Amino acid sequence: MRYVPTHRAKLGEVDLKAYLDLRRPLVESKLNELLPSEREEPATLHRAMRYSALGGGKRFRPILCIAAAEACGGSSDAVLEASCAIEMVHCFSLIHDDLPALDNDDLRRGKPTCHVVFGEAVAILAGDALFSLAFQTLSGIDVSDPAKSRAISALAFASGTDGMVGGQIVDIESHGKQVTLESVEWIHQRKTGALIAAACEIGAIVGGGSEGDVDRCKRAGERIGLAFQITDDVLDEISDSESLGKTAGKDREACKATYPSVMGIERSMALAKSAADEAVQVAESFGDGAIGLRLLARYSVERVR
Amino acid sequence: MRYVPTHRAKLGEVDLKAYLDLRRPLVESKLNELLPSEREEPATLHRAMRYSALGGGKRFRPILCIAAAEACGGSSDAVLEASCAIEMVHCFSLIHDDLPALDNDDLRRGKPTCHVVFGEAVAILAGDALFSLAFQTLSGIDVSDPAKSRAISALAFASGTDGMVGGQIVDIESHGKQVTLESVEWIHQRKTGALIAAACEIGAIVGGGSEGDVDRCKRAGERIGLAFQITDDVLDEISDSESLGKTAGKDREACKATYPSVMGIERSMALAKSAADEAVQVAESFGDGAIGLRLLARYSVERVR
Repeated sequence: MRYVPTHRAKLGEVDLKAYLDLRRPLVESKLNELLPSEREEPATLHRAMRYSALGGGKRFRPILCIAAAEACGGSSDAVLEASCAIEMVHCFSLIHDDLPALDNDDLRRGKPTCHVVFGEAVAILAGDALFSLAFQTLSGIDVSDPAKSRAISALAFASGTDGMVGGQIVDIESHGKQVTLESVEWIHQRKTGALIAAACEIGAIVGGGSEGDVDRCKRAGERIGLAFQITDDVLDEISDSESLGKTAGKDREACKATYPSVMGIERSMALAKSAADEAVQVAESFGDGAIGLRLLARYSVERVR
Repeated sequence: MRYVPTHRAKLGEVDLKAYLDLRRPLVESKLNELLPSEREEPATLHRAMRYSALGGGKRFRPILCIAAAEACGGSSDAVLEASCAIEMVHCFSLIHDDLPALDNDDLRRGKPTCHVVFGEAVAILAGDALFSLAFQTLSGIDVSDPAKSRAISALAFASGTDGMVGGQIVDIESHGKQVTLESVEWIHQRKTGALIAAACEIGAIVGGGSEGDVDRCKRAGERIGLAFQITDDVLDEISDSESLGKTAGKDREACKATYPSVMGIERSMALAKSAADEAVQVAESFGDGAIGLRLLARYSVERVR
């Protein structure tokens, strides 16, 4: 089943907004289908899972997963489901990161955070349940068993101690300390970069890409992840909370390890642009099918304007 | 690679202690190998993961996984690794359940709990990282890709909202309320039963069992899980903290949903015995290779003596 015609149009014929607007509702609708119903027990847990995973968010990671699959010529329902698994892991990490014991954030995607609405116990367990559902979802997609195993391995690797969780702990430990560019890179490659790279890698795997395709998509994802994170750091410095949908200026206030803190805003933006350019080049090597990947590579930095 | 000769001896020739003593060090040693080193960054996270996953615990679930594989004629290194993945999920759930926002427990396996030693932030992330490592481990085992996908699906299903996490939240919500036998069953089937049943199911899958073998092992696991949980509830009522390795009498104090609270100690023990008997019968249908499964079915209730 094809969820949407793959764009074969040349870059410029489809703009970013149209690209995102076409895919975001598909992700939202599939997430809605995959998440357990609020009418089923345990209802509180399901409400908390749905509250945090639905009705907000740019859906950058799942759409990137779809774009990578498209670059490899794939646009099956399995790709859409895999993209939702990635978004579930992202939502799980947001819930846990926002907890009082971690970043202690009250606002996320323009809404009160999960623990503010449901309490800490439910928030911790809703995060755990979303993480589990991500693997349940990936293990049920309709692709070959070797592709499935590979996708699961990539997701587990990107989310654990070598990836997202590892980056988050070192980020917390670095609060209030003078950090080097090297540690900022170490943290962000894992905390944000690993899952964004995995989104591209998994899209390529599930989309039926060759070994080389998967490697190139992962590489593009790594550069996009870097550009995206630097841009996030810059946005935190220069935006207000309303336009950001989360508490602004928190990074500087908490003396967090960010790119602007070690190299200033101008140089940070230049670095982000160069990473995005590299990703665009990789995307171009895929030809016209990779229009989404190119648009998203640009989007990763062009949010700052 | 065979990690240990499968016992083909008749029941009685090998006793429970010998059976457990032979397998526990294998599980410990493989866990030690699979867990990331404390010498690697992020060192704090790795220390917390190792603190909670090593040096304690009966290893009931992983040894049950091994016993189910043996019943199906399998005893490969893949079985041992899969058994460790199950233990990682168990340890992750203990860390999160012990948190102040949940059960607020200071003592686990005779040691201070993870958050007492490392703080809440590290404990939450160490749990997350162990959960992730479980899937990373399963996705890397040396079995056929279909068996791998099936094992991963079983683990994800048993640990999420339909299993462990779902049971835990309803357990928390039932604190201090008058509960029915039906809700105690609902909670325990998920909170403890699901992962124990999955240990048997995954052992059978990775051990090369037929469809029928897998079903029977899962059925045995469900009965063992029930017997094990009732026995746990009874032990909490009648033991002291030292022999229990965790705070005793907490269930009653917290007005938790337990079998003794709805049917008294005597009837609870009779129900546990009957569930264990049923599991032994299933194990016997596998013949002499299932000696471990039979011993563990007995063990699930005979801890109370």
